[in-house]
Amino acid sequence: MASLHASLRTGARRCSRQYISNLTSISRLSRSIAADSLHSRSSLQPRTRTMSTTTSLRSLNINNINPHIKEAKYAVRGALAVKSEEYRAKLAKGDKDLPFDTVINANIGNPQQLDQKPITFFRQVLSLIEYPPLLEKEDVLLNQLGYKKDVIERARWLLKEVGSAGAYSASAGATGIKNSVARFIENRDGFPSDPKDVYLSAGASSGVNTLLHVICAGPNTGVLVPIPQYPLYTASLSVLNAKCVPYYLDEARSWGTDLQAIKDAYASAVKEGTDVRAIVIINPGNPTGASLPPQDIEAVIEFAAEKKLVVMADEVYQTNVFKGKFHSFKQILRDLQSKTPEKYDNVELASLHSISKGMVGECGHRGGYFELCGFDPEVVEQIYKFVSISLCAPVIGQCLVELMVNPPKQGEPSYELYTQEYNNIFSGLQKRATALYEAFAQMEGVECPEPQGSMYLFPTINLPEKAVEAAKKEHMTADEYYCHKLLESTGVCVVPGSGFGQRENTLHFRTTFLAPGTEWVGRITRFHEGFMKEFR
Amino acid sequence: MASLHASLRTGARRCSRQYISNLTSISRLSRSIAADSLHSRSSLQPRTRTMSTTTSLRSLNINNINPHIKEAKYAVRGALAVKSEEYRAKLAKGDKDLPFDTVINANIGNPQQLDQKPITFFRQVLSLIEYPPLLEKEDVLLNQLGYKKDVIERARWLLKEVGSAGAYSASAGATGIKNSVARFIENRDGFPSDPKDVYLSAGASSGVNTLLHVICAGPNTGVLVPIPQYPLYTASLSVLNAKCVPYYLDEARSWGTDLQAIKDAYASAVKEGTDVRAIVIINPGNPTGASLPPQDIEAVIEFAAEKKLVVMADEVYQTNVFKGKFHSFKQILRDLQSKTPEKYDNVELASLHSISKGMVGECGHRGGYFELCGFDPEVVEQIYKFVSISLCAPVIGQCLVELMVNPPKQGEPSYELYTQEYNNIFSGLQKRATALYEAFAQMEGVECPEPQGSMYLFPTINLPEKAVEAAKKEHMTADEYYCHKLLESTGVCVVPGSGFGQRENTLHFRTTFLAPGTEWVGRITRFHEGFMKEFR
Repeated sequence: MASLHASLRTGARRCSRQYISNLTSISRLSRSIAADSLHSRSSLQPRTRTMSTTTSLRSLNINNINPHIKEAKYAVRGALAVKSEEYRAKLAKGDKDLPFDTVINANIGNPQQLDQKPITFFRQVLSLIEYPPLLEKEDVLLNQLGYKKDVIERARWLLKEVGSAGAYSASAGATGIKNSVARFIENRDGFPSDPKDVYLSAGASSGVNTLLHVICAGPNTGVLVPIPQYPLYTASLSVLNAKCVPYYLDEARSWGTDLQAIKDAYASAVKEGTDVRAIVIINPGNPTGASLPPQDIEAVIEFAAEKKLVVMADEVYQTNVFKGKFHSFKQILRDLQSKTPEKYDNVELASLHSISKGMVGECGHRGGYFELCGFDPEVVEQIYKFVSISLCAPVIGQCLVELMVNPPKQGEPSYELYTQEYNNIFSGLQKRATALYEAFAQMEGVECPEPQGSMYLFPTINLPEKAVEAAKKEHMTADEYYCHKLLESTGVCVVPGSGFGQRENTLHFRTTFLAPGTEWVGRITRFHEGFMKEFR
Repeated sequence: MASLHASLRTGARRCSRQYISNLTSISRLSRSIAADSLHSRSSLQPRTRTMSTTTSLRSLNINNINPHIKEAKYAVRGALAVKSEEYRAKLAKGDKDLPFDTVINANIGNPQQLDQKPITFFRQVLSLIEYPPLLEKEDVLLNQLGYKKDVIERARWLLKEVGSAGAYSASAGATGIKNSVARFIENRDGFPSDPKDVYLSAGASSGVNTLLHVICAGPNTGVLVPIPQYPLYTASLSVLNAKCVPYYLDEARSWGTDLQAIKDAYASAVKEGTDVRAIVIINPGNPTGASLPPQDIEAVIEFAAEKKLVVMADEVYQTNVFKGKFHSFKQILRDLQSKTPEKYDNVELASLHSISKGMVGECGHRGGYFELCGFDPEVVEQIYKFVSISLCAPVIGQCLVELMVNPPKQGEPSYELYTQEYNNIFSGLQKRATALYEAFAQMEGVECPEPQGSMYLFPTINLPEKAVEAAKKEHMTADEYYCHKLLESTGVCVVPGSGFGQRENTLHFRTTFLAPGTEWVGRITRFHEGFMKEFR
């Protein structure tokens, strides 16, 4: 078993390396799929030989399983994450050999693993939904446990809507909760929303999975994906054996969308015979932290209307905005439709949201939704059928979606505490983002735009040639090498830019700004100084 | 919007009909895939014409989306379920026109939607995990809210293991919970289990999805699936564009496995060039309710060892056994391995369990696990990577898995109540199963083996020729017609046998025995009498 675990570890590392080479390869659109798969095959050869005995004895081996699963890469939970967990386990056992005393998981947007406390109103309601007999002890709840009237009312209402948190809901989610989501969207955008267009999902990931499953009809289907991107998109497209059509974001404009880059990516893909059907936009950006201005969104919708592309708007960070204001794709689409209906009325938009991010941060509860606009009713039928095969999204996660979109209102008993907690989380994130940004500004060879939104910074790192050489010797890209060294020396885990894709000859890393305090920012600064000194 | 909804409804109905024709078609292995897809195409023609304008304006239409999603059928949540929800909504509005005053959803194994109360110990623990500040009021919990010491201890322990229910866990689940699952398996089987082989999943459905994703390498991969079956298997194989290789269960032997039928199905598939890689067994059976004797399990494992097939043992009903004793595939495999290691040591077994069924019945919480035995470590790496793309199973569902596998023990404060609740649920299910069985025994033309396990009965219905003719006029199979009429006249919703697959020229329906009381059984009896009289 120990050997299995070790092999899993080295495997994860290898897998992460393959992902890097793969994403590096999509930076050259000209490189053909055939060459890429040849590359994967040859990298597997030595291993295949050593496994030959097993191969002949079992049904499944690395050479006969689903090749598209093998091709999928997901660096966010890759080699570095595995290594950080090993360090964490060592420290928990009292190991004193490591040069740090805590591991800082800045590799993943997992707020409650770090500092972020759940919002009291949300969790009080959930406690009552999980154990409804508590509702019979209203005076104990109110007078001894600090629950407020509105907590009790909301729990009663949600229980009426879902029956029991232990019962399957309707496939697309509980009706009452979908109504709340539609009202939230209406209030946010100033345009109507129909609850029937809302699908509750197990986090936004599950929504993305559903949509890509329906969109991708075969190896020739192409989907425009921003680079850098959250690797869920490339991984899902690999699994579905469809084509990722990468378009570069404009680092010089704080990672905004660059319409020309989108047009060029589309044109080359179409020229190669790809049937490009959809465009993914992550706004606010992951890993970039960009928050798109309305004109960028308009430009994307105009292009989508012209080329008949489904717009997939990943808006899970819509409340994590520090600069300017969040503009939803739905609102801007409806605006355009009201002005030029003949041009925009058939645009297909799927916009996704989640309870995992924002000030909610309830990743572990796996809740989210997507709203469909302008889809063909026959396609909607198929989406509905597809989601019904996995029965329904977790019902407690559905309840959290309701609480997120319908929090306590001014004048309600829980409003004050809710607002205070919400604002504290928001300002804590902003404070840490600023601390990180300021630290990066002082670091030699590091460039980082001012924090705008989401939970991440994605600085460029200009590393000395000697570091690039040292990385090569370890069969790593330079950013991967840097991140491994950072983790080994400081316990701070970040993800190399190659895990998300980046322009050739550029290097980055992604760090969350969720970890408590700013002491760990100092660890990065000191490490960076030493690293630059060593390799200058 | 109303028209979209209407189209969704008729669509769902049409989809259900296609599923029936599809499952009927797999009863004739000789019918080619080409003919089947021709059939689907022709049935869509009229619709395609009316949609031509839309088709040219949008990116996605019914003719260009993923064809494998279109092929997937899932009758359990199909036309009848949709119709029953409409009736339920009508009754809720006070409609007096229907010939019944309640809808009985006997179509789906959703215990808490019906009578089944959650187990107190489980839900008390969950309430504390959702709102940990309650743990600071121990005396209120103990003295005023009826919580016991062990509830508090368990909640503290689980919180230590998961950190927060709102944080992502490790991809394959929280370590402490996987340890508990492994201990449970050891105690159940008397053989060791390694927590590293345990993967926590969002219900068993998500585990099946993971395993089939890795197993299915292309259109030529075949998986042996029992007929009748739970349609998750055929639906997932459709989505993955792999081949379902159906083998018939032996109705004459209370739906036991029939080794000869498995051998024949395997041989015909291999002869046609299919690469058969795995065999699915559902034990206790869904929809059949069969509980397999050890010799049936041994025979399957022996065949799997000989032909190098992955054994997928769907054991979600392992505690729903009324007759005899549940035998796990893992236990019998380990037994065989200890006797004849050279023959059995390389058998690959994935066994699945869930919190949705049994006396737990927590479907809405989406929890479950699978254990892998004998898989190639390189394949395990890929399974791990695949599950990491969807981040993790819902953490509260993971906690429920822990509670299910590690309930209060004798001598612990919650033991008595837990045992009482558990036994009441068990005997209630048994009582209703018996009432249904006895009613079926009295009904003309209905044959049903004695209840053995799971949550279902799956009686044969011998319907008069005139009923078959009437069904044809409505473009339905006779069992579908019968089930529609039953729902329309009585409000009782069951699923036609064609939704699960059945031998040609046989008719069945599946009913759960979860609904409270036995009054609804009388509704079925009276309806059946009238139906037989009308069509005799």
